[in-house]
Amino acid sequence: MAKVNDNYLKLPGSYLFSTIGKKVKDFSEKNPDKEIIRLGIGDVTQPLAPAVIDALHKAVDEMGNADSFMGYAPDLGYSFLREVISEKDFKARGCDIEADEIFVSDGAKSDCGNIQEIFGLDNRIAVCDPVYPVYVDSNVMAGRTGEYDPQLERFKDVIYMKCTKENGFTPDIPSEVPDLIYLCFPNNPTGAVMKKEQLQEWVDYANKHDSVILYDAAYESYISEADVPHSIYECEGARDCAIEFRSFSKTAGFTGLRLGYTVIPKSLKTGGVDLWPLWARRHGTKYNGAPYIVQRAGEAVYSAEGRKQVEEQIAYYMQNAKIISEGLKDAGFEAYGGVNAPYIWMKTPDNMTSWEFFDYLLEKGNVVGTPGSGFGPSGEHYFRLTAFGSRENTERAIERIKTL
Amino acid sequence: MAKVNDNYLKLPGSYLFSTIGKKVKDFSEKNPDKEIIRLGIGDVTQPLAPAVIDALHKAVDEMGNADSFMGYAPDLGYSFLREVISEKDFKARGCDIEADEIFVSDGAKSDCGNIQEIFGLDNRIAVCDPVYPVYVDSNVMAGRTGEYDPQLERFKDVIYMKCTKENGFTPDIPSEVPDLIYLCFPNNPTGAVMKKEQLQEWVDYANKHDSVILYDAAYESYISEADVPHSIYECEGARDCAIEFRSFSKTAGFTGLRLGYTVIPKSLKTGGVDLWPLWARRHGTKYNGAPYIVQRAGEAVYSAEGRKQVEEQIAYYMQNAKIISEGLKDAGFEAYGGVNAPYIWMKTPDNMTSWEFFDYLLEKGNVVGTPGSGFGPSGEHYFRLTAFGSRENTERAIERIKTL
Repeated sequence: MAKVNDNYLKLPGSYLFSTIGKKVKDFSEKNPDKEIIRLGIGDVTQPLAPAVIDALHKAVDEMGNADSFMGYAPDLGYSFLREVISEKDFKARGCDIEADEIFVSDGAKSDCGNIQEIFGLDNRIAVCDPVYPVYVDSNVMAGRTGEYDPQLERFKDVIYMKCTKENGFTPDIPSEVPDLIYLCFPNNPTGAVMKKEQLQEWVDYANKHDSVILYDAAYESYISEADVPHSIYECEGARDCAIEFRSFSKTAGFTGLRLGYTVIPKSLKTGGVDLWPLWARRHGTKYNGAPYIVQRAGEAVYSAEGRKQVEEQIAYYMQNAKIISEGLKDAGFEAYGGVNAPYIWMKTPDNMTSWEFFDYLLEKGNVVGTPGSGFGPSGEHYFRLTAFGSRENTERAIERIKTL
Repeated sequence: MAKVNDNYLKLPGSYLFSTIGKKVKDFSEKNPDKEIIRLGIGDVTQPLAPAVIDALHKAVDEMGNADSFMGYAPDLGYSFLREVISEKDFKARGCDIEADEIFVSDGAKSDCGNIQEIFGLDNRIAVCDPVYPVYVDSNVMAGRTGEYDPQLERFKDVIYMKCTKENGFTPDIPSEVPDLIYLCFPNNPTGAVMKKEQLQEWVDYANKHDSVILYDAAYESYISEADVPHSIYECEGARDCAIEFRSFSKTAGFTGLRLGYTVIPKSLKTGGVDLWPLWARRHGTKYNGAPYIVQRAGEAVYSAEGRKQVEEQIAYYMQNAKIISEGLKDAGFEAYGGVNAPYIWMKTPDNMTSWEFFDYLLEKGNVVGTPGSGFGPSGEHYFRLTAFGSRENTERAIERIKTL
């Protein structure tokens, strides 16, 4: 008789965005005259850059011609893309990452979710709290987390590292030593960053304890300050302890096109075993490469023209972030993030819970955001707003919040 | 200290296509005047159909415009694609499969590799021998197969079902009852099919023993005979025991575009637990949807024009298959498949091993195929040729084989 993977049954319902959707729908139906502005979900709104569109059209034409048609892609990605990533994202920043250490994929979400597979079930993971849910959920599914405690809103065997106002929303070294350490900076949902010397401490710690850091750098393009590392490989020794995830989703608006990559240095070993061949074997067995046309689109992001265009998009979103952040502060709210990340993490007023403030903002301001408690218990009394809306909607939303 | 997943270390080297590549390279270097014809790898050569190219260009334009830009896709696929799949691939054949039972993905390889995750580690799997390597390898990685026995070329805890000339390359019911049964028909590598009544026996068997059939129907478009089922859901009771995988790779030449889907009926339970929500949760956690433009390309395959164009491509490849199959028989070889599948499975002459025949064919005929032993021990003394070459090359390859 077939048996299901019982670990899946340990997952609590994933109600955050469905509950938001339901509340917004109910409100709209009762208030058809109210126009709702959504600054909740982290999806981009700007269209793809012209250089990307041109590259897509050109690649589509190649696929329609027998002489230039491309079948199965190389498992780990086309050289034209891996080479330019190595040059522009790493070597240009002084990071020693070669093209063949880059694994092209359909996105950082898939890679962040799948990476745990190459590690044994007896690893103890550490995550920030609040946190992007994929890190924990993918480990629950694999059976690495123990049972869920609904009272604590936590899994028994996971090390949660609180990120609060007191520590600048960056984790302190935990008292128990984790085997796998998930870090995401610039952070979703708080918008916080780690300075280079802070991240260096984590790298040193991981090397000392033979832990592996799983570093999600999906938002690195939004960094505006000088002493904030874009890659963990800017830190000394990171090639011996870190895997890094990158995304084209927020960098170049590829949320609907799907492209990302993972870096596994060839020098990275765990218990004497090289990790590079394990991930290569996983790619070769359970994946068939990102579409040729999408890899060409990715290449176009690194052209002079493409780079300029996506930088303009990022500047547009970061101007939104500034409008939100300054507007909130002007209105007397505590607000964090928004300087090196497209997320603003605000404290709810009057000690309201995250969901109370959600309801209040929806009803009084007709603005939708994301309750911080949805990202973990330490997110309670916080609220996430995103900079991915249009300028007009962002400005109007802030005007409404100011007059609450 | 971090620990790797030791199960990965049980995998024997994946040397089949790399060894072929090396041998071909060596031969070319020593014989620069010889022109080599490749009928080895199962990749298509015809360009994408005009209707698909038009749909891609149109969707790319939408992505370049703020009003029509598409961000994150729905996790399980766009309705426009799921609806047309349900209608054309299932309801038109009398199969009761609804749009919301279809999970759109980046290909059947990913889905075939990932599906085992929703099942517990204590399931016993059964596979055909010879077989597409992904089914076994993905289970090795998860820890479901025990150790590899290099003498037997088999994993200790896997039930291998021999597919030989004697049983028409279709498996007999095994003596031990498996929990998960991988079946692929039309078959890669043998090109064999199961008639409907044969497949019905497997469905009845699975329902009787509460086993789940994982049915890979990637090659269903190549079926030409009337009593061969295109979907396992043509069999009575399959909704209660079967998951089906489909691919656009061979149907419409999407090997480089990446699109497929998996069907999990809502009525499918294992030990009282619904499987549909588990796979939905996996999609939502570790996947972010197939690209919008690729889903639009998939939709175009079902338009009247698109259908006609891809049918012409399939007819072209199947004419190649006929040329290979008849040519081999004319030349005195035993050959199977090629009627409902793009693969021809030939017996090597004079009791040569698969690799001996590979070398012989390369050296004497300058033609490359795939040694049958690469797909499992029961593939020894067989050899796979594919119909995916150009007509001209296919004809020339057969002329060369005839004059060996």
